[in-house]
Amino acid sequence: MDKEESAPGPELRPLIQKTKRYKRRNLLTSPGTLTYIGPEIALKTKVRRIQYNEQMIRDEAVKSLNECAPAPVGEPIITWLDVDGIHETGLIEKLGKLYQLHPLLLEDVVNTEHKPKLEFYDSGHLFLTLKMLHVESENPVCLSAEHVSFVLGTNYVISFQEERNSDIFTPVLARLEASVGKTRRNGPDYLLFALLDIVVDNYFLVLEKLGDNLDVTEDRVIAGSDDLSLNELYALKRELSVARRQIWPLRDMLSQLIREENSQIAKEVVPYYRDLYDHVMQVLDTIDSYRELVASLVDVHLSTISNRMNSVMKTLTIFSAIFMPLTFIVGVYGMNFEYMPELKMRYGYYYVWGIMAMVTVGMIFYFRTKKWM
Amino acid sequence: MDKEESAPGPELRPLIQKTKRYKRRNLLTSPGTLTYIGPEIALKTKVRRIQYNEQMIRDEAVKSLNECAPAPVGEPIITWLDVDGIHETGLIEKLGKLYQLHPLLLEDVVNTEHKPKLEFYDSGHLFLTLKMLHVESENPVCLSAEHVSFVLGTNYVISFQEERNSDIFTPVLARLEASVGKTRRNGPDYLLFALLDIVVDNYFLVLEKLGDNLDVTEDRVIAGSDDLSLNELYALKRELSVARRQIWPLRDMLSQLIREENSQIAKEVVPYYRDLYDHVMQVLDTIDSYRELVASLVDVHLSTISNRMNSVMKTLTIFSAIFMPLTFIVGVYGMNFEYMPELKMRYGYYYVWGIMAMVTVGMIFYFRTKKWM
Amino acid sequence: MDKEESAPGPELRPLIQKTKRYKRRNLLTSPGTLTYIGPEIALKTKVRRIQYNEQMIRDEAVKSLNECAPAPVGEPIITWLDVDGIHETGLIEKLGKLYQLHPLLLEDVVNTEHKPKLEFYDSGHLFLTLKMLHVESENPVCLSAEHVSFVLGTNYVISFQEERNSDIFTPVLARLEASVGKTRRNGPDYLLFALLDIVVDNYFLVLEKLGDNLDVTEDRVIAGSDDLSLNELYALKRELSVARRQIWPLRDMLSQLIREENSQIAKEVVPYYRDLYDHVMQVLDTIDSYRELVASLVDVHLSTISNRMNSVMKTLTIFSAIFMPLTFIVGVYGMNFEYMPELKMRYGYYYVWGIMAMVTVGMIFYFRTKKWM
Amino acid sequence: MDKEESAPGPELRPLIQKTKRYKRRNLLTSPGTLTYIGPEIALKTKVRRIQYNEQMIRDEAVKSLNECAPAPVGEPIITWLDVDGIHETGLIEKLGKLYQLHPLLLEDVVNTEHKPKLEFYDSGHLFLTLKMLHVESENPVCLSAEHVSFVLGTNYVISFQEERNSDIFTPVLARLEASVGKTRRNGPDYLLFALLDIVVDNYFLVLEKLGDNLDVTEDRVIAGSDDLSLNELYALKRELSVARRQIWPLRDMLSQLIREENSQIAKEVVPYYRDLYDHVMQVLDTIDSYRELVASLVDVHLSTISNRMNSVMKTLTIFSAIFMPLTFIVGVYGMNFEYMPELKMRYGYYYVWGIMAMVTVGMIFYFRTKKWM
Amino acid sequence: MDKEESAPGPELRPLIQKTKRYKRRNLLTSPGTLTYIGPEIALKTKVRRIQYNEQMIRDEAVKSLNECAPAPVGEPIITWLDVDGIHETGLIEKLGKLYQLHPLLLEDVVNTEHKPKLEFYDSGHLFLTLKMLHVESENPVCLSAEHVSFVLGTNYVISFQEERNSDIFTPVLARLEASVGKTRRNGPDYLLFALLDIVVDNYFLVLEKLGDNLDVTEDRVIAGSDDLSLNELYALKRELSVARRQIWPLRDMLSQLIREENSQIAKEVVPYYRDLYDHVMQVLDTIDSYRELVASLVDVHLSTISNRMNSVMKTLTIFSAIFMPLTFIVGVYGMNFEYMPELKMRYGYYYVWGIMAMVTVGMIFYFRTKKWM
Repeated sequence: MDKEESAPGPELRPLIQKTKRYKRRNLLTSPGTLTYIGPEIALKTKVRRIQYNEQMIRDEAVKSLNECAPAPVGEPIITWLDVDGIHETGLIEKLGKLYQLHPLLLEDVVNTEHKPKLEFYDSGHLFLTLKMLHVESENPVCLSAEHVSFVLGTNYVISFQEERNSDIFTPVLARLEASVGKTRRNGPDYLLFALLDIVVDNYFLVLEKLGDNLDVTEDRVIAGSDDLSLNELYALKRELSVARRQIWPLRDMLSQLIREENSQIAKEVVPYYRDLYDHVMQVLDTIDSYRELVASLVDVHLSTISNRMNSVMKTLTIFSAIFMPLTFIVGVYGMNFEYMPELKMRYGYYYVWGIMAMVTVGMIFYFRTKKWM
Repeated sequence: MDKEESAPGPELRPLIQKTKRYKRRNLLTSPGTLTYIGPEIALKTKVRRIQYNEQMIRDEAVKSLNECAPAPVGEPIITWLDVDGIHETGLIEKLGKLYQLHPLLLEDVVNTEHKPKLEFYDSGHLFLTLKMLHVESENPVCLSAEHVSFVLGTNYVISFQEERNSDIFTPVLARLEASVGKTRRNGPDYLLFALLDIVVDNYFLVLEKLGDNLDVTEDRVIAGSDDLSLNELYALKRELSVARRQIWPLRDMLSQLIREENSQIAKEVVPYYRDLYDHVMQVLDTIDSYRELVASLVDVHLSTISNRMNSVMKTLTIFSAIFMPLTFIVGVYGMNFEYMPELKMRYGYYYVWGIMAMVTVGMIFYFRTKKWM
Repeated sequence: MDKEESAPGPELRPLIQKTKRYKRRNLLTSPGTLTYIGPEIALKTKVRRIQYNEQMIRDEAVKSLNECAPAPVGEPIITWLDVDGIHETGLIEKLGKLYQLHPLLLEDVVNTEHKPKLEFYDSGHLFLTLKMLHVESENPVCLSAEHVSFVLGTNYVISFQEERNSDIFTPVLARLEASVGKTRRNGPDYLLFALLDIVVDNYFLVLEKLGDNLDVTEDRVIAGSDDLSLNELYALKRELSVARRQIWPLRDMLSQLIREENSQIAKEVVPYYRDLYDHVMQVLDTIDSYRELVASLVDVHLSTISNRMNSVMKTLTIFSAIFMPLTFIVGVYGMNFEYMPELKMRYGYYYVWGIMAMVTVGMIFYFRTKKWM
Repeated sequence: MDKEESAPGPELRPLIQKTKRYKRRNLLTSPGTLTYIGPEIALKTKVRRIQYNEQMIRDEAVKSLNECAPAPVGEPIITWLDVDGIHETGLIEKLGKLYQLHPLLLEDVVNTEHKPKLEFYDSGHLFLTLKMLHVESENPVCLSAEHVSFVLGTNYVISFQEERNSDIFTPVLARLEASVGKTRRNGPDYLLFALLDIVVDNYFLVLEKLGDNLDVTEDRVIAGSDDLSLNELYALKRELSVARRQIWPLRDMLSQLIREENSQIAKEVVPYYRDLYDHVMQVLDTIDSYRELVASLVDVHLSTISNRMNSVMKTLTIFSAIFMPLTFIVGVYGMNFEYMPELKMRYGYYYVWGIMAMVTVGMIFYFRTKKWM
Repeated sequence: MDKEESAPGPELRPLIQKTKRYKRRNLLTSPGTLTYIGPEIALKTKVRRIQYNEQMIRDEAVKSLNECAPAPVGEPIITWLDVDGIHETGLIEKLGKLYQLHPLLLEDVVNTEHKPKLEFYDSGHLFLTLKMLHVESENPVCLSAEHVSFVLGTNYVISFQEERNSDIFTPVLARLEASVGKTRRNGPDYLLFALLDIVVDNYFLVLEKLGDNLDVTEDRVIAGSDDLSLNELYALKRELSVARRQIWPLRDMLSQLIREENSQIAKEVVPYYRDLYDHVMQVLDTIDSYRELVASLVDVHLSTISNRMNSVMKTLTIFSAIFMPLTFIVGVYGMNFEYMPELKMRYGYYYVWGIMAMVTVGMIFYFRTKKWM
């Protein structure tokens, strides 16, 4: 009986942690000072440098940052610097100096709470930061966001990611090394596209998990399952709204990139960005339809609960309406008056049973016509 | 009594299937690789080629794709390639090469989850994809969306549809062959209009079915029918919102086509597209008024349920308020005190009945003044 | 007791009829084919031709359509063709040919489900269609929409209306014939304004009826009237939202007409159109405030119902809390134990009454402090 | 017990009167005919003419309208015509002719239901109409709107107001006469600003009254006062929404006046209008925060009511759960079986009391652990 | 039992005080007259003058306002006038004359209820007013807003703040004096940025407090804590909405400052303003996610309450359904009929106990199958 009253369960916990994790910048710190605010991380930052063109590809783990200096602009070689770990602000700062990146840009790279944004810098490079979504636990689905940033220069791309268990850009590297495909033939703008594409494809994966979870939850809602609490639905709703909030800004960022006037993206590559934009729209659309579904499941669940409540009340009323008159009747003949003719009657007792049977049948009939039974 | 508690029923099932059907693209696949993600289909793709101008019309089933090559641009002949089936990606790819279509365009042709969209290509053709709605079951109405795409070139139209039981464009073909009407006299832009018109007209048909269903449901809501669960209304609401989501983008697509500057649509044909636009608006308007109606029916249903609950509570209260005092009174005279003067009275028993009758009448009167009876 | 459970009543019926009345166009029909989809009408279409300028006015019922040909452009005479009845599509088609109207324009004239719209045609005339609202029944107010269309040419106005009991434009005709007022002195643009003005003035009339009804309903809501069901309020709400939906597009249409660049409306007449626009805004504003009022009445009604429910529950609880202890007490002394000292006491019976009186008083006092009584 | 069920009270009444006061224009009347639609007024219209410049000021009650003719344009004198009363349409019409005002402008002056609006006339004057808000009663606050209009010409301002107990523009007149302040030194645009400023300042006064009322109501909501009905809160909400609706259009009107291109407002005076705009924004902002507060009070009140209902149900359940078992137990020993060993026991009666005490204590303990007591 | 019924508590009080604190301007006062409307303050206004360039810095408390005159424009020295206290309107007025500030600007400086706004003045300075948020009490969090204004001239910045316990700009002063950092090297535009940055950083601090509070509240909601009233959640919601209302206008103000065309902000400083803009967006984003969280907690809390109510009703029904039949049965054998064969039976009494046990078990079984127990 007490089961439904129990605490909503632990599935709401991770969310709040996420929403208030950031630390405030020290008021005495001058703006532009790098402060990493994500979780504590023990691992060292890993930096890979991949250099390629149509003819060759070189991939090496960087030991000293001095090796990372950008290739001279004229040379027909594209450099991809894959920085895995943003908690060592000193390293980031050095890199920034090497590539002449604005301190405020670096601040955004290490600020894991920063919203996705796109910024063009006068020095000719563009900066882009967004969120990779990871499924932390499957049931209930709990998402975490990884802060990912990109700098696109004339002949290089730098990608920054938080140090997690694995490098998310491995598939692109694999494709680069496997064969001379579109990525090798095109410029750094196409490489950036390929990296973004990995992130967006990953959204579909996350949606699939959310969809599976929704599927199971829907089955339970429809079956009127008892151990389903509304809180599970609210948790799902919140994960969806977190995902939406993280992905939504991508829409504007990509549409800004697609618009012609900006020279960083070559004309032949624009259709790929447009395709990416379509995918983001599809992701947002799916999220919206999931949100609608969750809202609809909440409605169905509430109506199931309300039906049960009605059923409880009807049961109570039927019991009361049947037994109260009966109890009254037997009470009457429990009175101790000296002169009660019925008590003396030979079949009085049986008559009373007859009357009570009639009352009961009458009541049942009455409730049947009212469709309560 | 348990009837209302039963599971919401199977009518919600198909929706969830639909919303999560897509498959994720393999992360290792390079963008532009065609992946069909719709249901498995055993039938082979059927391709028809219709060639016509005001003088003649030729209609043939295509056996080898090589026959499908576009007519030379100068020749005064319009080619309509009607591709029925998009699950054979190899075939689609070959066709794409023949007509020099962008790989990303072909990706959208076979991606059955893609949202309706319109895209202009530099090579002079335009691409348009939308959803044909089918009524899968009539009661409850369950819609399914068929992915339909069009390519409009200078002298050809290619239409793609999923392989279903029948070709949806048969009426246009029939009209083309029947007589030298507007379609034969005009260019491929008018043909495209005629094909789109079929799809939009079909929306009216779907709305009619939804309207019939709403009609029946409304009758039941107004009659306060017992076996109506809110879930039916929620299912209707969701079908309407699915339909709206599928049709809504058409609005922008058509208004973009109508705007003057684009040369693919001849000036004389523009009014027809404008008419189509009006029809789409009418469809959306009707959907909105249906949604409002459903919302209003939900309100009425909830108020009916709440009235019943009130009625149950009143019944309970009336029974309790009448029988509790009576049971108390008979209890009093069931006490075994040695000195209870009333018990000895000659007509005590009848007096008690009198008192009880008065109490009952008083209660009934009280509840009448409170309008509970 | 069952009164509140009764069916919501017939006042919701007419609405649904209205919302699904249209018929679907035959899929085989080529676009531009006229199909009348309104209710069946037995009467013949009536056509009047009024010709006037400042000097003279001629008004005649048209027998043969050939008489209807437009006056030569140079001649200083304004022709008003008042077509009363749009169900004879043949006649409309003939008229269309005479005045060189686009077939799609004619389609909109006879499509009684078409939304209000304004369209400029290259041939120099403009087309305008809107809804005349009629009050079908006063209590509950039920509106019906009449499809009215206008064509404004350089020297003529054609007005189309559904064949109803009376011609809605009679007042304008009366004013035209009565004296040489503004209408006679100005061009066809002013005539169009006068006709539109009639339609908009009529909206005020309809609002007045709705307002009267709201007034009565509000009195009943405030009096807490029993026979008021929420459904009446929902029906009012829906009528208001139907009216809003029909009138809303007028706003954009008129503001489009007012904007300078369009030459069909003379500069001196523009202020009148601006005035009309203001009136439409006032109508929409009033509808919005009525909608707010209805929403507020729904809130008040729901809170009245909830107060009553509370009152029922309190009554039940008070009865239970008073009589349950009493019944228990009398039950105690109804036990048949051989050794029960109280039973032997001389005034035991009276003591028990005393205790019961104290319990009752205590309970009443308790409920008074809790403000339940 | 019945107190809460009583009718919502009279505070809702005035609102409905207001919303439907307008009368419909006669359908046979040609547009531009002046029709006063406000309440019947017995007093005569009062017209003051104030003429001033930096050197002098003359203030006189106008007896004959002929004295009101505008001063010649060249003369360095500003005329302010303060018309107090708009129900004598004849007088308004004469004034209109004298100052060459458009008949439709005059129609808006006397149409007390007209929404606030700003209109520029080709003849070089601008027309502005808005609402002065008056507090009709303080508890509950009930607002009424006075229709106020202004015409700003090159060297004159005409102000129109409904005939009420006092002239609302007295403070401006007092300031004009008191000393040679900013108003005397500036042109008619500054005078208009001063008049508008009075109206806007008055909004703050009205808000203060509403705020006081809200304050008292909030105290009662928080104290869980019994005699507070939701309807008072709904009435407050409606007054706020009426005020908002009346003031909102001012925002656009003023921002239109501020924009540079319009020559009626001198550049030095523009900052004052911008200040006025800020004040209007502050008023709207305060109204919005009041609306939020009312919404929040409704939530608190509903949750208080729901807590009480819960408390009632718990009381009922506790009484039932304690006394039902007890009544059952005493019932058992009230049975008349011949062989019931307990009845013969010496201390049976006391044992039963012991058992009942244990049941009671157990129940109380149970409800305590469930936190119901 | 009465605990939940108690008054919502004092946490709602401070809010209402805040929302109605402003006083109305006297209607007879001419616009531009300074009126301080904040709380009464006994302290004297403190004015500091800081003058600096890359070489030197001078910081002095101003004794006489005449010392405050701006430095001549050509001199390479930046003046920062830090005015701490805005209740002495005479002093503000004098300052205004010295720096040639518009009276309306000064009015906004002292009007503590003024919304945040940005205004450009023709005389070349810009004016900016916003709100510093302070946490008045931590549990429940209660915010107060301090009115802060800035004037940015060609070579000076004036900052105005309400006289509170401490000067909020101390950290900037400390940074200025500590070393020759970015602030000393840049112009007054960078100084303004540094001051604004302090205010915005402070928002993060406030959010952190709100987040901590939310954290604790969430724990209690999830634990189903009894002493949590909805009102605490509503109070949190209101604080969040107050904060949002105060911060929201900053968004537009900053984006207006960033746009190129305005010359007050040097090109090199613009990225810092853009960074500030990003921070404001992050603050607003966090507020929105907090609001969503509060809404979700309200949902969870309501569903917990509703679950409890259900549990109460089920308990009542189970008790009634078990004991009503039992009481009826014992009542039957309490009847005093002379001929009741069961009473004479040797084991009648035990049979009855058997029957009652069966009824009880049956009931329990019935409720188990219905999942009520």
